[in-house]
Amino acid sequence: MAKKTKKTIKRTGPSLLISGRLARCRRQMKKHRVAALLISKPRDAFYLIGFTGEDSAVLVLAKEVHLISDGRFDESINQECPWVTRWMRKGLLNAEIAKVCKSLKLRRLAVQADGLSVADHRAIDKLAGTTKLTDAPPILEDMRCHKDEHELQVMQRAIKVAQQAFLAMRKSIRVGQTELELAARLEYEMKKRGSSRPAFPTICAEGLNGALPHAHPGSRRVKRGSAILFDWGARVGEYCSDLTRMVFVGSIPPKMSAVYDVVLEAQKRAIKAIKPGRRMCDVDAVARNYIIDAGYGDAFNHGLGHGLGLDVHESPSLSWRSDQKLRTGMVVTVEPGVYLPGIGGVRIEDDVLVTSNGYRVLSTLKKSKTGSVI
Amino acid sequence: MAKKTKKTIKRTGPSLLISGRLARCRRQMKKHRVAALLISKPRDAFYLIGFTGEDSAVLVLAKEVHLISDGRFDESINQECPWVTRWMRKGLLNAEIAKVCKSLKLRRLAVQADGLSVADHRAIDKLAGTTKLTDAPPILEDMRCHKDEHELQVMQRAIKVAQQAFLAMRKSIRVGQTELELAARLEYEMKKRGSSRPAFPTICAEGLNGALPHAHPGSRRVKRGSAILFDWGARVGEYCSDLTRMVFVGSIPPKMSAVYDVVLEAQKRAIKAIKPGRRMCDVDAVARNYIIDAGYGDAFNHGLGHGLGLDVHESPSLSWRSDQKLRTGMVVTVEPGVYLPGIGGVRIEDDVLVTSNGYRVLSTLKKSKTGSVI
Repeated sequence: MAKKTKKTIKRTGPSLLISGRLARCRRQMKKHRVAALLISKPRDAFYLIGFTGEDSAVLVLAKEVHLISDGRFDESINQECPWVTRWMRKGLLNAEIAKVCKSLKLRRLAVQADGLSVADHRAIDKLAGTTKLTDAPPILEDMRCHKDEHELQVMQRAIKVAQQAFLAMRKSIRVGQTELELAARLEYEMKKRGSSRPAFPTICAEGLNGALPHAHPGSRRVKRGSAILFDWGARVGEYCSDLTRMVFVGSIPPKMSAVYDVVLEAQKRAIKAIKPGRRMCDVDAVARNYIIDAGYGDAFNHGLGHGLGLDVHESPSLSWRSDQKLRTGMVVTVEPGVYLPGIGGVRIEDDVLVTSNGYRVLSTLKKSKTGSVI
Repeated sequence: MAKKTKKTIKRTGPSLLISGRLARCRRQMKKHRVAALLISKPRDAFYLIGFTGEDSAVLVLAKEVHLISDGRFDESINQECPWVTRWMRKGLLNAEIAKVCKSLKLRRLAVQADGLSVADHRAIDKLAGTTKLTDAPPILEDMRCHKDEHELQVMQRAIKVAQQAFLAMRKSIRVGQTELELAARLEYEMKKRGSSRPAFPTICAEGLNGALPHAHPGSRRVKRGSAILFDWGARVGEYCSDLTRMVFVGSIPPKMSAVYDVVLEAQKRAIKAIKPGRRMCDVDAVARNYIIDAGYGDAFNHGLGHGLGLDVHESPSLSWRSDQKLRTGMVVTVEPGVYLPGIGGVRIEDDVLVTSNGYRVLSTLKKSKTGSVI
C-alpha cells in the first residue's frame, strides 16, 4: 500500500525539485506583487515545470499552474507534468492565453517583455478583455543564474559527454579530412553518448578559417601543420556545455604557438580572478589587458564569456559591457581569443562555476600545446 | 583589365540574386510607404543580404543598406556582404540601432512586430530620439513564401542530403541499437554530406514512442517487429528539408499495417489536392476527413503541414486554422499522422512545391510498406 501511495503522488504532483522551484518563484512573485505570471520562454517553462514542448505557455498563480498547449504535446504533458491544469488549444496560442485570462478573471497578467514579441503582446492585450498586461520582473532569469545541485550534476554530464566525444573524434583525425567530416564525427560521438543535439552548431575551423570567431565548417582539409579550432558543446538533459580547444596537426606554426601562449595565459589569469562579488567587466579586463599588452588587443573582438545553462548564452554576460557582479552558483564560460585575418585564430574555452570562495573549473580537457599535438 | 573590373564589382556590390531581392523589397517598401525598414529576424537578413551572423540588424533604405553588427562578424561581413554600410557596435544592439536612426535623421523606422521583443522595441523607441517606430508590413514573409529558382535548387540539395543519409543509416540498423544511436548515425550521415546541422532535432521513435508526435530519441532499442518513426531534415546552404518515414523491422505489426495504409492514402489524396488558389484548410480537410472516416479522427492531432525554407516552420500554415490560399512557388510539407497512445504512431511526410498547374513532390524516398521493411 505504501508503495502504491508513493507512486500515486509521483504521478499526480510535481517532483520535489519542481516544487522547490515553484515555491521560490512564488516567493518572488509575492515580493513583486505579481499574482499571475505568464511564462512564454520555452526554457523557462522547462526549468519551472519540466515541460519540453513548444508553442506553449505556462501560467503560474499562487496555488495553480496552467499549461496552454496543443494536441501534439498531450503525451509529453502526461509524462513530464501531468499535474498541471491543461488548456489544449485548437486555435492560436495568443487567443487561448486570452481565453484563460478571461476564464480565470485575472485582473493583471505579468508577461516576459524580453520573451514575447510586440505582435504577440498586442494580440493577447487585445483579446484578454479586462485583464491588464504588466511587465514581469526577471524572476526566472535571476533564478536560472544560480545553478542548483541537480543542474550542476546535469551540466557535468553535458561537459563529460562533450569531452569524451572530443577525445574520440581527435583520435580519428587524419590528413585530408574536411572540417565538415571532423565536425560530423564530433557531433556523432556526442549524440551516441546521450546528447540530444549539439548545444550549438559545432565550429571546426582549419588554418585561416580560425580567424572567423563563428566559422562554419566546410571543405577545408586537414594538412600537416594545420592549426584547427574546435568550439563545441553537448546538450544533455536540456543543459549545455561549451568548450573550445585547438588541435595542432604534426607541428605548430611558430606564429600560432606564440599566440597560443598569450591566449592560454590570459585565460588562466581571468579564471583565477573569478570570485563572488567581482564585477564582470573587471574579470574581462584581466584577460583583455594581458592580450593588449602582448600586442594583440584589436584581435580579441568579443566578450570574455557568458552564462551557460539551459541556454548556451544566458545571463550573466562576462563582458566589458557589464558591471553586474559574479554570484555563487553562476556557471560561465571563459573564452579569450585572438583572431588574425590571413593567418588564423586561437581560442581556448572552459566552463567555470563560481563557488563561495572562488571558482571551480568544471571542464577538465588538457590544454597544453604538446597535449593537443597529434 | 576587364577581368579586374569584374572582380572589383564582385567584391564591392551585391550579387545579382541579392540585388533582385533588394529591388523587390524596395518596391514593396515604396508601395507601403516605408522609407526605412529594420530587419531583426536573422533568416530574413540572410535572405535579403546573405549575412549569416547573429545579434545583428539590417536597415534597408531606398539607396543604402546598413548592417548593425559587432566585431565577431567582421570577417563574415567581408565574405558575405562587404558592400553594406557597417556599424560595428561596442555596446548593446538596441543602443546602436538608435544611434543609426539619429545619425541618419530617420523620421520613421518600420520594425518587424513579430520579430522584435517588447523589451527591444521599447529600448529602441526610448533611445531613438525623434525617430518614430511603426509596424512594418510582412514584406519579407511574403517574399519568402515564394521560392525562386536559386532557393529551389538549394532545397533540392537539402532534400537529397537528407534522403541519401537516411538510406545510409537504414542499412546500418541492427536489432539492439537504441533510438539515440540511429538518430546519431542519421545526423552524422547528413553532416558528412554537407548539412551544416539538422533542420531540427531528429526524431527516432521506436514502438510506443511513435505515439508522441515530437518524441525525443532515447534508450529504447530496436527489436524484431519494431515500427520506427523517423522525422528528420538537413540544413544545407541555410535551407531546410523535412521528411518522415516509417521503418518496419522484420515484420509489420498488423495494427500498424492498417494504420499505415490509412495515413499513406490520406497523404496521397492531400498531395493531389494541392494547386494554386486552393485554401490551406481545404487541403488539410482532404487528409483529415479521410482519417476521420477511417475511424482515427482524434488520433490526427496536428495540422497537415507547414511552409518550409530558411525556417523549418515558416509561412504558410497548411492547417485547418488557415483560409489563406496556396500560391505558385510555395513549398510545404504534407505530413498526416495517426498516434495511438499505448500502441504507437505512423506519420508520412514529403516536401511539395506548388506549381502553376498543381504540385511537384520534391522528395523521392519510397514509401511502400514493403519498401521500408528491412
